[in-house]
Amino acid sequence: MTTPFVAVLMGSDSDLPVMQSTLDVLKSFDIHFEVKVTSAHRTPAATHAYVKDAEERGCKVFICAAGLAAHLAGAVAGITTRPVIGVPIDAGPLQGHDALLSTVMMPGGVPVAAVAIGKAGAKNAGYLAAQMLAVASEEMAERVKADRQKNAEAVMAKDAALQEKLGR
Amino acid sequence: MTTPFVAVLMGSDSDLPVMQSTLDVLKSFDIHFEVKVTSAHRTPAATHAYVKDAEERGCKVFICAAGLAAHLAGAVAGITTRPVIGVPIDAGPLQGHDALLSTVMMPGGVPVAAVAIGKAGAKNAGYLAAQMLAVASEEMAERVKADRQKNAEAVMAKDAALQEKLGR
Amino acid sequence: MTTPFVAVLMGSDSDLPVMQSTLDVLKSFDIHFEVKVTSAHRTPAATHAYVKDAEERGCKVFICAAGLAAHLAGAVAGITTRPVIGVPIDAGPLQGHDALLSTVMMPGGVPVAAVAIGKAGAKNAGYLAAQMLAVASEEMAERVKADRQKNAEAVMAKDAALQEKLGR
Amino acid sequence: MTTPFVAVLMGSDSDLPVMQSTLDVLKSFDIHFEVKVTSAHRTPAATHAYVKDAEERGCKVFICAAGLAAHLAGAVAGITTRPVIGVPIDAGPLQGHDALLSTVMMPGGVPVAAVAIGKAGAKNAGYLAAQMLAVASEEMAERVKADRQKNAEAVMAKDAALQEKLGR
Amino acid sequence: MTTPFVAVLMGSDSDLPVMQSTLDVLKSFDIHFEVKVTSAHRTPAATHAYVKDAEERGCKVFICAAGLAAHLAGAVAGITTRPVIGVPIDAGPLQGHDALLSTVMMPGGVPVAAVAIGKAGAKNAGYLAAQMLAVASEEMAERVKADRQKNAEAVMAKDAALQEKLGR
Amino acid sequence: MTTPFVAVLMGSDSDLPVMQSTLDVLKSFDIHFEVKVTSAHRTPAATHAYVKDAEERGCKVFICAAGLAAHLAGAVAGITTRPVIGVPIDAGPLQGHDALLSTVMMPGGVPVAAVAIGKAGAKNAGYLAAQMLAVASEEMAERVKADRQKNAEAVMAKDAALQEKLGR
Amino acid sequence: MTTPFVAVLMGSDSDLPVMQSTLDVLKSFDIHFEVKVTSAHRTPAATHAYVKDAEERGCKVFICAAGLAAHLAGAVAGITTRPVIGVPIDAGPLQGHDALLSTVMMPGGVPVAAVAIGKAGAKNAGYLAAQMLAVASEEMAERVKADRQKNAEAVMAKDAALQEKLGR
Amino acid sequence: MTTPFVAVLMGSDSDLPVMQSTLDVLKSFDIHFEVKVTSAHRTPAATHAYVKDAEERGCKVFICAAGLAAHLAGAVAGITTRPVIGVPIDAGPLQGHDALLSTVMMPGGVPVAAVAIGKAGAKNAGYLAAQMLAVASEEMAERVKADRQKNAEAVMAKDAALQEKLGR
Repeated sequence: MTTPFVAVLMGSDSDLPVMQSTLDVLKSFDIHFEVKVTSAHRTPAATHAYVKDAEERGCKVFICAAGLAAHLAGAVAGITTRPVIGVPIDAGPLQGHDALLSTVMMPGGVPVAAVAIGKAGAKNAGYLAAQMLAVASEEMAERVKADRQKNAEAVMAKDAALQEKLGR
Repeated sequence: MTTPFVAVLMGSDSDLPVMQSTLDVLKSFDIHFEVKVTSAHRTPAATHAYVKDAEERGCKVFICAAGLAAHLAGAVAGITTRPVIGVPIDAGPLQGHDALLSTVMMPGGVPVAAVAIGKAGAKNAGYLAAQMLAVASEEMAERVKADRQKNAEAVMAKDAALQEKLGR
Repeated sequence: MTTPFVAVLMGSDSDLPVMQSTLDVLKSFDIHFEVKVTSAHRTPAATHAYVKDAEERGCKVFICAAGLAAHLAGAVAGITTRPVIGVPIDAGPLQGHDALLSTVMMPGGVPVAAVAIGKAGAKNAGYLAAQMLAVASEEMAERVKADRQKNAEAVMAKDAALQEKLGR
Repeated sequence: MTTPFVAVLMGSDSDLPVMQSTLDVLKSFDIHFEVKVTSAHRTPAATHAYVKDAEERGCKVFICAAGLAAHLAGAVAGITTRPVIGVPIDAGPLQGHDALLSTVMMPGGVPVAAVAIGKAGAKNAGYLAAQMLAVASEEMAERVKADRQKNAEAVMAKDAALQEKLGR
Repeated sequence: MTTPFVAVLMGSDSDLPVMQSTLDVLKSFDIHFEVKVTSAHRTPAATHAYVKDAEERGCKVFICAAGLAAHLAGAVAGITTRPVIGVPIDAGPLQGHDALLSTVMMPGGVPVAAVAIGKAGAKNAGYLAAQMLAVASEEMAERVKADRQKNAEAVMAKDAALQEKLGR
Repeated sequence: MTTPFVAVLMGSDSDLPVMQSTLDVLKSFDIHFEVKVTSAHRTPAATHAYVKDAEERGCKVFICAAGLAAHLAGAVAGITTRPVIGVPIDAGPLQGHDALLSTVMMPGGVPVAAVAIGKAGAKNAGYLAAQMLAVASEEMAERVKADRQKNAEAVMAKDAALQEKLGR
Repeated sequence: MTTPFVAVLMGSDSDLPVMQSTLDVLKSFDIHFEVKVTSAHRTPAATHAYVKDAEERGCKVFICAAGLAAHLAGAVAGITTRPVIGVPIDAGPLQGHDALLSTVMMPGGVPVAAVAIGKAGAKNAGYLAAQMLAVASEEMAERVKADRQKNAEAVMAKDAALQEKLGR
Repeated sequence: MTTPFVAVLMGSDSDLPVMQSTLDVLKSFDIHFEVKVTSAHRTPAATHAYVKDAEERGCKVFICAAGLAAHLAGAVAGITTRPVIGVPIDAGPLQGHDALLSTVMMPGGVPVAAVAIGKAGAKNAGYLAAQMLAVASEEMAERVKADRQKNAEAVMAKDAALQEKLGR
């Protein structure tokens, strides 16, 4: 039987610093993942081959990061019927506004699940992938819930620190 | 055991004409779903109660539609750890540009899976929900693949009709 | 009898440097205030509990700061019927344009009083809160008037300094 | 003693259809109000005289509606120290995007409380004025709370109607 | 020897009314062309096969029209090294602003020649294709020049008509 | 008889570095000018008094610079019937996009002559003022023409330098 | 001696309905004017010849209207050193936002005086031209002042009518 | 017989650092080219003369770079009937958004082939010119194909390096 995993694709290795946040979240949930540099435009055949192969090998969720006319998520969504999460990268003079629209405004029938531009979106791509895997795994669902609780506590700890600093 | 289902929430019943596309897609995949009119701002307590209850009763995916400062998807994403799909409605003078940003630019830790503004997004919310359920169900995965094939054939049929019309 | 006060909420402690301007203005008017780090998405229950409690303890005006899909002001406005001032923070690649639309485009029945993005807005949130409190306090109204006069004089002093520098 | 009231100013009588929503909300709360057509640019002296006079006669809140380079709210905010609510009107080819920025991006020291563009904002201007008056009047605070409850029930009634229609 | 021709691709047959302007211009220059309905997302394999085949059969220029997250031109540009002209269609709530950015903001190495959104762009796609073919054909270059002259005369005729109407 | 002059108003002395370009152009044309720091919102009365007085003392053109909700040019245009040039300053998170719309979208009857955001606009405000004064002065018209010629030569000199550098 | 006049240029006769507002204002001030349909792109030589000739025949102000990539005002500003007023026309899918930026963002040394998009701008182009001519003519200055007074009275009459209608 | 070449025009020598990418690509394809600093607004006559002369001397493709109200490409497209590629430069506070719209939104009959804002566009202008020349030259077509292959290999090499780094 194949091991379920998440595939993280990026159009350029320059997207890696932003996408490290995705990898960190996936690791924190003990999710198997692969990272692939591949371009919708420069290596369309390699992209197609990788996605088809990954799907067969048990990839359950694809995460695609790209900037500018960010077509990678849409291109992958046209190859696979697994859920595809698109992370618009804030590269170039329009700061990711172009990448957001290129990622999210998909025509009916071929959805992309878009998250926020840049670092916040990269982080949430990891969380969203975990939530998707949790549809099939109560154990993963529990991990996601526990993490949410931990995040809430972190906010409350910051508040407590602030109250102390303000002398209340 | 609970029956898995999708919950479709909308901030106002005026969103129903657009969201009918979501319901049609869910029906075409034989997915159980509930529809709920509830507002992040006008009925936050009712929204909270419904989401918590739905999650316990087996809701696997939430789809939330809202226009303007579209907070519904984000609010629901803060209550549940199930995947939340946000459909920005093209209501008001900014034509959904406001709703898109309010839906997609979520901070790290609480993801929303945003789809396109308006009808195309409403349709894709249904497809994306089906893809998410397919993570846990090979049967659903097959239905999604079959539908994709059917969609491709529809495009090719339109092309054939055009070629005929052009007399080629 | 409860002491009237203003509650300043922010989605993250990273908003504090910008929001210091609010606190400085409130202090300059001798207005009692509380500062709270709480998130519409990560700690919705804590946010709800704080707002309800603050309202009962005599909070007359809420000031909420958030960036990106800035839901905090709207979420608080859905909990309380006291006036809520929203400060869109210029965080992230869209520089607060997203936060502005998420804050200001509220649906009918649940208003948020939006001010400018970033530092100018943070400052004005303090002034606006003072003006609101002045509806119930002639003394506060006098303080606001006096401050306005002082501000006008500061502009005129800058002009005088410029004229001198230009040798006129 | 003067009777407290709200002054509703608009740059042109063509703004009246949108601003009728404001008047309806004020009426529903039994709030005294005046309506004035006056322009920041075409009749600055008349605007100045009216605002000064209204302030002296007991005007507690100003509501200003304007489209395009919407300066009316800002101009009034420079004359009075009472709270000024600005409603950006969706007139002209930019659909109120210009009016929103002209209304909300006020410099430090002279705040305008901006609400949504067009009809939703016009309605909320009335609600926000009621909330501001409620800072000085527990009776008004009760009316606002009761209305919020009524609004919540209206949403729930719409949901009930939908459930019935869907045969659940 | 193959006959040189232009291939006009569109993501949906609903783009045909706008793209008729392209076909009319191509016809006016006696340029051979093919029209194809094919989708970057719904029929990526058919798109790939058609482009490869067309290139071999002597297609010298590709014109691609698409709306929303308009990927068709970019996808075709990734398959062929012939020049690709992209026409952003003004479909959907963002009126083609999304399609423009998705078409024009291509990464280095895979260019798309973008023209204006909608009808003006559709017309110019035909003109631009003619200019490109004219690089290899002095006869075509002469036709383009003659047409430019005719267009100039049309503007001057409109001016003459206006002068007459104004009685000068 | 009064000496004709240009009045350069700015909302804050922080606009001076940008507006120095205006002053430099005015000086280069030997145009008399005054510089005034005054705010449409913080010192409306002083602004009104200055504009009225300047007009009487022979001010022929007003140049107004402001950022954010840039009302200064519009406010001055409502006081005087002399031409008013508005320079949108690129201050704040929206980089002057707000100031541009607040300056240029004036309602019918009270025009502002808007120039580009920031430094290019500041420079052109000086040129435009010179062109306006030249309507009444052939000598000034000659100076403007001579300067244009000089500017053209500067571009050609840059081209010559480039050709030399490229060794042609 | 030449008679001073204003030249109104438009890129297409389809701009005439919007630009009629300009002509009406010019007529109301008894200003001599010419109307010319000429295109920066389709008839650059004719545009150049007309502008040079008009300047020699005594044209004191040019008004140029264009939509989309609106270059006409900028092109004319590069030919003449008389003041050029640019009216961005709200044609095409971007509703004049493109025309505004193409008109106003001129580089240093070649100014265009931009007015609002569409009808309000067309009207103000006429007013601005009158103000520019008034720099050289006290009689024209008096007409502009009188018209301003008339406009103010019209606003006050509308207010009076509203007060009557409201029964006050 | 004239030697075919590409002319690279830029509005200012400050555009050279960005446009160096164009020159590098042209060199890599052994394409003859000329570089010219000339302005649509400051030196329209010199621009006209150069373009006419270049066209006669065998220029087959024009590449024009400009920022702000970027008219250079459109102006050149109005002079020649050879294909004109426009590169919007990311100069000024709007980061090239103005230049993009000024370049791409050309009216019917006078096309400009727009590429991405800034560096990516500059690079692609070179590629697009090579593709256009390849319409007339199989040898050039082969060079473009070979380069595409090399680019694909570069992406795959980056992926291989990443896989190694990740220890896979």
